[in-house]
Amino acid sequence: MVNTILKEKNTVKSMEDIAGKENVLSSYDELYAYSTDSTNITNPDEIAEAVVFPLNTQQVSKIMQYAYLNSIPVVARAAGTNVCGACLPKKGGIILDFARMNKIIEINKNNLFCIVEPGVVIEDLQKAVEKFDLFYPPDPSNLKVSMIGGSIGLSSGGPHTFKYGSTKDYIIDLEVVLSDGTVMHTGSSCSKDVTGYNMTQLFVGSEGTLGIVTKATVKLIPRPEAKRVMLAYYDSLEDTSKTVNEIISNLITPSVIDLIDQNTIKTIESFYPCGMLTDKAAALLIEIDGFKENLDKQYEKIIEICKRNNSSYIQTASTKEEEEKIWVSRRSSFGATAKLAPNVVTEDVVVPREHIVELVNGIKQICDKYNLKTCIMGHIGDGNIHPNIALDLRNPAELNNFKQAKKELFELALSLNGRLSGEHGIGCEKSEFIEKALDPNNLNCMKQIKKLFDPKNILNPGKIF
Amino acid sequence: MVNTILKEKNTVKSMEDIAGKENVLSSYDELYAYSTDSTNITNPDEIAEAVVFPLNTQQVSKIMQYAYLNSIPVVARAAGTNVCGACLPKKGGIILDFARMNKIIEINKNNLFCIVEPGVVIEDLQKAVEKFDLFYPPDPSNLKVSMIGGSIGLSSGGPHTFKYGSTKDYIIDLEVVLSDGTVMHTGSSCSKDVTGYNMTQLFVGSEGTLGIVTKATVKLIPRPEAKRVMLAYYDSLEDTSKTVNEIISNLITPSVIDLIDQNTIKTIESFYPCGMLTDKAAALLIEIDGFKENLDKQYEKIIEICKRNNSSYIQTASTKEEEEKIWVSRRSSFGATAKLAPNVVTEDVVVPREHIVELVNGIKQICDKYNLKTCIMGHIGDGNIHPNIALDLRNPAELNNFKQAKKELFELALSLNGRLSGEHGIGCEKSEFIEKALDPNNLNCMKQIKKLFDPKNILNPGKIF
Repeated sequence: MVNTILKEKNTVKSMEDIAGKENVLSSYDELYAYSTDSTNITNPDEIAEAVVFPLNTQQVSKIMQYAYLNSIPVVARAAGTNVCGACLPKKGGIILDFARMNKIIEINKNNLFCIVEPGVVIEDLQKAVEKFDLFYPPDPSNLKVSMIGGSIGLSSGGPHTFKYGSTKDYIIDLEVVLSDGTVMHTGSSCSKDVTGYNMTQLFVGSEGTLGIVTKATVKLIPRPEAKRVMLAYYDSLEDTSKTVNEIISNLITPSVIDLIDQNTIKTIESFYPCGMLTDKAAALLIEIDGFKENLDKQYEKIIEICKRNNSSYIQTASTKEEEEKIWVSRRSSFGATAKLAPNVVTEDVVVPREHIVELVNGIKQICDKYNLKTCIMGHIGDGNIHPNIALDLRNPAELNNFKQAKKELFELALSLNGRLSGEHGIGCEKSEFIEKALDPNNLNCMKQIKKLFDPKNILNPGKIF
Repeated sequence: MVNTILKEKNTVKSMEDIAGKENVLSSYDELYAYSTDSTNITNPDEIAEAVVFPLNTQQVSKIMQYAYLNSIPVVARAAGTNVCGACLPKKGGIILDFARMNKIIEINKNNLFCIVEPGVVIEDLQKAVEKFDLFYPPDPSNLKVSMIGGSIGLSSGGPHTFKYGSTKDYIIDLEVVLSDGTVMHTGSSCSKDVTGYNMTQLFVGSEGTLGIVTKATVKLIPRPEAKRVMLAYYDSLEDTSKTVNEIISNLITPSVIDLIDQNTIKTIESFYPCGMLTDKAAALLIEIDGFKENLDKQYEKIIEICKRNNSSYIQTASTKEEEEKIWVSRRSSFGATAKLAPNVVTEDVVVPREHIVELVNGIKQICDKYNLKTCIMGHIGDGNIHPNIALDLRNPAELNNFKQAKKELFELALSLNGRLSGEHGIGCEKSEFIEKALDPNNLNCMKQIKKLFDPKNILNPGKIF
């Protein structure tokens, strides 16, 4: 016990020496506040010794040197908006909060990239590059608060992933601090580069378990000139799936094609009303983009396809305000569901798209069986579904039901050739299921890579595996 | 010497046992023929013991088990069209020629992917998916012969990379045989998947040094409905670069934006005439695509921008035949240059696009200095330039000049924040320069990963590092 306290004090002192007293938190209340993230899990026994707000790469490197020498776990944290327990201090140690490394260092219009620190809020990045007529497409629902560092750690997606890809498709170089404090660059600012192995993509999505990202070079694309948003309502889920297939068969790639089920619509309308129809089984939120002149043909074709597949009503945003209202509502689905019960848990399974109806119906059955209030939505174009489950985690019976449902949900996704996560990551929430999801030889390779990069298992221990 | 012969015989016998006598080559002439690829290098001392045409994954696994036990090098080879010595048997051993594993196993229209064996010719793949209104964009110039397996090994690009990305952006799962014969899948057929580390991208571009690819799941996209191809001629290189910047500033992403210099135009017109103007300093080959109705606005804007930036003449293909003719000619630039001298060597440097004029002018100066006939072309949108150098490699003075020029070419690219390769790979041709190109800590990580996956250094030894 004495040793632990001494070590704690040493760690705090060392962190203060490295980052300055004003950039270190160490009181119990502060540490307790950092023992959770958006995953709704807090375990008072799993608490950090210190929270540090590093100001630059050198400080992160020094902190890692200290942690490596003393075998102290280090958890990188951006906005803490993840929903898989990716930045919980499962083994205590140091939390690196990147909120104060939040500079957009460069926006390079001619070379179509920008360089950012991990604490840059995603919406801020999008707005900053928009001024140069550029576009950073990945748009997790919480983009008003979530940060690029976390987005890199989890390779976040979002509605626009269907057309534009996810975070991994936009990261071309990372500055990374390795477990022993070594600083390195993984790539370059060239848009194409096959000089050696693709180390950048090894770090993207690795949840801070292989190294700490301190800077990222992000690929940008010219922004689409115009967009149009519509909501097509259906009385049957099967018809939404047929619509998606037919849109793609007609050579159209909408910038967004999301599914929203009736429960989600009702919940959104209860708390963030935007005039959605609450009596329909489901809606497709479809956005098309491109040059102004080019939208009409796509739009007309999509309307025709929706109608042919029994869409019973179609709303199209006719002003920028209406469009924004739809987006705000759509992005509020998590927040709205959270108002139904003390907690909301978001899952994130993905299947090849042809299995989407089976997946959604299966999720409903499972949640009904366990009496869980569930709002289902997701990126139907990608086969990626998010059930938002509202419940009271303090109620042991509900918690138990949820755990059972979660297990069956993953089994269902895997039985449909799916995976545990399309864009939210594994964290500690799904790590117990990863053996069932991955080829054992592949998992073995991943574990060996982890060991290679983090021989002392100090980088975000207890995550992914 | 006796041992070597015995070993040789054993290897051939073992390969015949595994793959069948009809799928093994072992005569000196055959092995000599396999001691080279499109890189123009043959070293009679660096010759394989056997060439095997495996028919399935099980055979590849058995071959790797044999090779692992006996510490025999194994070189995976697809069409051998690479130009960096990526499949030369530098240390002898076994060559696996994948020409007989050439099946398209599945084209899945609704899920937008196909599953292929490594020996599928890229153009065959493109044509097969086109029948389903789908599109596989990566298009190396030699796509009529080059195979997807090689393309994965080198993460090949091509003209369409500017808009659509390179091979890496289309590979979502690989079946890989590891150095000890273990077979594993690296990913899944889900379009989004963050279940563990991105192992797929570790293998893409690794040139067969980490494992042998035996199957690939390839992402597809809806094919563009229409395209339009034009050639804009210029009297100055600077104006081509300004044109590219202005096109992008105008929110246009052409599907292709390639640069062709006067020497290349002249050479193409001498051997594969398509009516290009030979008196201009350079041309931009621009292709736009999308819905038929959507091309006009882009086209008019581009024409306006080209003229404003002093394009002295613009040719637009008005029929599919004219379009095809331009493409055939453009893709013949390597072949045409090869007619200028006994050999042609293609380089593949890449820089952030703002440095493109300095790069091209620098290349010209270097090649003039060493009296080398050079045709310069490349993917200007990506900052990726290919100097095609025609020479007689048997002439010691010319060879020496070329070696000097190559060294200076790489130094130039690196001085402009560039890299050794945008899409052709490192192979053995550029491995001596990789230390200068990469962050030493990154290179060290790569070497450790190589050691982890290939502890006996039997997978394509002498490549990349």
